[in-house]
Amino acid sequence: MSTTITLPSACDFHIHARQGVLMEMVVPQIAEGGVSLCYVMPNLKPPITSTEQALAYKAQLQKLAPNVTFLMSLYLCQELTPEEIRNAKKHGIVGVKSYPRGVTTNSESGIESYSIYYPVFKAMEEVGMILNLHGELPSDVDQDTCVMNAEEKFLVHLKQLHNDFPKLKIVLEHATTKAAVDMVKSLGDTIGCTITIHHLQLIVDDWAGQCHNFCKPVAKFPHDRQALRDIILEGHPRFFLGTDSAPHPAYLKECSHSSAGVFTTPLAIPYLATILDSFGALDCLRKFACENGKKFYGVSEEEGKYREITLIKETSLVPHLYSFDKSLEEREGSVVPFLAGKNLTWRIIN
Amino acid sequence: MSTTITLPSACDFHIHARQGVLMEMVVPQIAEGGVSLCYVMPNLKPPITSTEQALAYKAQLQKLAPNVTFLMSLYLCQELTPEEIRNAKKHGIVGVKSYPRGVTTNSESGIESYSIYYPVFKAMEEVGMILNLHGELPSDVDQDTCVMNAEEKFLVHLKQLHNDFPKLKIVLEHATTKAAVDMVKSLGDTIGCTITIHHLQLIVDDWAGQCHNFCKPVAKFPHDRQALRDIILEGHPRFFLGTDSAPHPAYLKECSHSSAGVFTTPLAIPYLATILDSFGALDCLRKFACENGKKFYGVSEEEGKYREITLIKETSLVPHLYSFDKSLEEREGSVVPFLAGKNLTWRIIN
Repeated sequence: MSTTITLPSACDFHIHARQGVLMEMVVPQIAEGGVSLCYVMPNLKPPITSTEQALAYKAQLQKLAPNVTFLMSLYLCQELTPEEIRNAKKHGIVGVKSYPRGVTTNSESGIESYSIYYPVFKAMEEVGMILNLHGELPSDVDQDTCVMNAEEKFLVHLKQLHNDFPKLKIVLEHATTKAAVDMVKSLGDTIGCTITIHHLQLIVDDWAGQCHNFCKPVAKFPHDRQALRDIILEGHPRFFLGTDSAPHPAYLKECSHSSAGVFTTPLAIPYLATILDSFGALDCLRKFACENGKKFYGVSEEEGKYREITLIKETSLVPHLYSFDKSLEEREGSVVPFLAGKNLTWRIIN
Repeated sequence: MSTTITLPSACDFHIHARQGVLMEMVVPQIAEGGVSLCYVMPNLKPPITSTEQALAYKAQLQKLAPNVTFLMSLYLCQELTPEEIRNAKKHGIVGVKSYPRGVTTNSESGIESYSIYYPVFKAMEEVGMILNLHGELPSDVDQDTCVMNAEEKFLVHLKQLHNDFPKLKIVLEHATTKAAVDMVKSLGDTIGCTITIHHLQLIVDDWAGQCHNFCKPVAKFPHDRQALRDIILEGHPRFFLGTDSAPHPAYLKECSHSSAGVFTTPLAIPYLATILDSFGALDCLRKFACENGKKFYGVSEEEGKYREITLIKETSLVPHLYSFDKSLEEREGSVVPFLAGKNLTWRIIN
């Protein structure tokens, strides 16, 4: 059996690059983790709602990582007009991200308010922009909706959007359930789906009392994790890597109300290779991390600044912390990565 | 509407009284929280497996709280013999607690090993001791068993035990699911069930990233919480209060691997009155907290050292911390209680 793997490039179609000192740590780690191209989330403070903001942010990122390709997105909100969509497309913005908070605006049961965005979606469909969905209904006790079924209950709305905009490319982000996998498979070629690294590893037990494994959507049942693994083993072309890597300072995790998010950027591809290897899917690494996403997004090879990476089957330890501000106390100025202190079985050697 | 409630006594049929300095803080709080009688869990270090240990522990507790009645239990393990059961009964020990760890000993799929305890259960049935079950299967990915369905999957074993020992009184501890409520209701009069304070308040969302709400069994879906509330509203006689109050120092909660447990002892009855009031069940407080449990356990009024308490409808703040060791740093020497910093609407005035 081969002990090295060479990948032509790897893409992360869902990353939180952050701002300020945290951004200055994270962005150079994208390449260290083996990723050449990433799709950047717009949920900054304030959120990125205009082309101008997106381009300014992209310039910051590009300066920190000249050899990485950054695909930019806007934050779906009521200020976003069809005109701004056309302007964004002209300036190379790739997509628009919808969060549940936006979804609930001016709507009692949440999701119905998509209809107010239909003119925007129409414009996106016409110009060829991607709609990225955080696919969860807001929790609602009266409807028995909670973090464990919020994704499954969202899926009818994905189906509806697909019916209403059959040519609009939509990505269901960070799928966590068998129901989501089945729904995406059942829909047309304009529906894609990202899967994170951590959701290939975790189940609900792993975030019960373990704040560093807590993220939204939460990891679910063992059979859900198996469905995520199976779709990668199947090599389905519309499923691809989006890490949703979301660093938070340690003190905002190890506290009474933990921030949601798992940090995987600095070791993204080593994590992924280790986990895929654990369930016999190493052969699927290339399609899942390098090919499927680019094809779905229609990114040409020429567009990307790609770097070939070579992985070797060797044990290495995940650091306990990554420091982003040495002037702060350790828990305030550093981030605990996914699987901190654990061994990975693959590492990048170039 | 009356703004005071007088209760003849209140009983907590599931309490962790701890050891050492933590015990010295917790045990006097039992009466402060409005409880006159409690059933004490045996999972100490080392666990209480003999009558002698149980009586020595009881003496420690009684010294710290002379006006509280302590009912004692043994930890189910392979060393426990039918002879020791008879000896325990003679010395006033009330029951035997089964934990999942014990359940899994010498058994691949866990629960089958109950059969090795059948001679013990037979002796318990004969002498009239209570079997207390932590009713969860161990998590098992291959069986799709995880913290969210571990209780529901256990219930067939409760039913089997009831069939095999129809006269043995069994308590399903800290029920968290509609399935558990339905199963207990469907079984005979020898099957009782405790419900904690926190499971009447929490759903899965509330422990997602909130370590102080994390306990085992975990809180589940909204419809599960509703089933717990409904059975209290129904006034069903075989359901009664068992808080499972389980204090841990704050630093063992606010960390990467949180200890499981919610601490409710110091305000037990004010918490309960506040929560029952929130869903219109204040009229059921007396049956649930004072009457049903005693009847199920067969505790006579003469046995208990009962204290009448009066609650008044007045707002009071739950402390942020309870200190048990002032010589330690705050996070090491104190416990964060349930609903820390929140308002309760009922408080005890005598």
